[in-house]
Amino acid sequence: MKLYDLDVSGNCYKVRLFASFIDIPLTIVPVDFLQGEHKEEALLQLNPWGEIPILEDGDIVLRDSQAILVYLANKYGGGAWWPSEAHLQADVMQWLSVASNEIKHGPGAARLIKKFGVDIDKTQALERAHKTLALIDNHLGKYNWLAANRPTIADCAVYPYISVAYEGNVIIDKYSNIKTWMERFQELPGYISMPGN
Amino acid sequence: MKLYDLDVSGNCYKVRLFASFIDIPLTIVPVDFLQGEHKEEALLQLNPWGEIPILEDGDIVLRDSQAILVYLANKYGGGAWWPSEAHLQADVMQWLSVASNEIKHGPGAARLIKKFGVDIDKTQALERAHKTLALIDNHLGKYNWLAANRPTIADCAVYPYISVAYEGNVIIDKYSNIKTWMERFQELPGYISMPGN
Repeated sequence: MKLYDLDVSGNCYKVRLFASFIDIPLTIVPVDFLQGEHKEEALLQLNPWGEIPILEDGDIVLRDSQAILVYLANKYGGGAWWPSEAHLQADVMQWLSVASNEIKHGPGAARLIKKFGVDIDKTQALERAHKTLALIDNHLGKYNWLAANRPTIADCAVYPYISVAYEGNVIIDKYSNIKTWMERFQELPGYISMPGN
Repeated sequence: MKLYDLDVSGNCYKVRLFASFIDIPLTIVPVDFLQGEHKEEALLQLNPWGEIPILEDGDIVLRDSQAILVYLANKYGGGAWWPSEAHLQADVMQWLSVASNEIKHGPGAARLIKKFGVDIDKTQALERAHKTLALIDNHLGKYNWLAANRPTIADCAVYPYISVAYEGNVIIDKYSNIKTWMERFQELPGYISMPGN
């Protein structure tokens, strides 16, 4: 199985992390992001959206880190990480949407601005980040895991950009429930960190 | 089954539309959005994120329109709209992420600015809208449906804010494949439109 990858991308890390949890070997294909390789014809053929990660598993080609988590958990995860029961699956799904939207446009965007100099609205990114983190912190005051009372792909989808939020000047010290959850998450067998973290 | 609803919300329409496709009766609970009822204690108890739709099915309470679609399709849809095969489910999931992110921050945001006077970056919303619509149009030049070669909750999640894109001054005339797909979608048994459309 091939992962078109960038080591400092939180979305790529998300896939490497989950593959490590379920002990699936990945062949890493580094993409020269700074040179715009993801916008060139070969990769656009695999993902017209011009983004990474991209997963290739035989004939299957998938874009979008949340979709890749669903695929891996469904096919190789044995039901633990992506429950089949409708209400539990939907519980996880709520957090996959948070990863696609609030996390991306909150701590994810703040990091893009600070670390990569991307020109997007900093005030808005920081506001969204702290609004989102406060809601997550409140939720984690009541539950050990984001969804379904156990570790799922919800945690895997939300964790990466929170773990590197400081790189966007989003300081998470006051979110004590998030900090405890991160420690709990890091103790799961197979956990790996972002490079440099 | 209760839906906390706002008639002009594309995300609420999404749930009403899919419930109509699979012929599930909903008890509609109108939320006084303009008066901020969704930010008051009673609704915050159901959804701390302060948003609608909210679905109540017995003891199950769900927020996020994509998660609600997954729940309804999984529990009541008989597998047609939300495939269980890993690669097809992931194919649908790619578009649920597009609904949560690109559609929300593209045509959805443009409509919020124009129709509801929300203070967000108009140029950015219009750019995102057309970039997203061009990618979807290109995809629909090759496929009749967004995912899995059949109507799924991917189409239900992406359609609503495209169908009312004109309310945000996002003109879709040049996206001929999208227009054909919309006509195809509107012919599905059980289709209902947004109020006023």
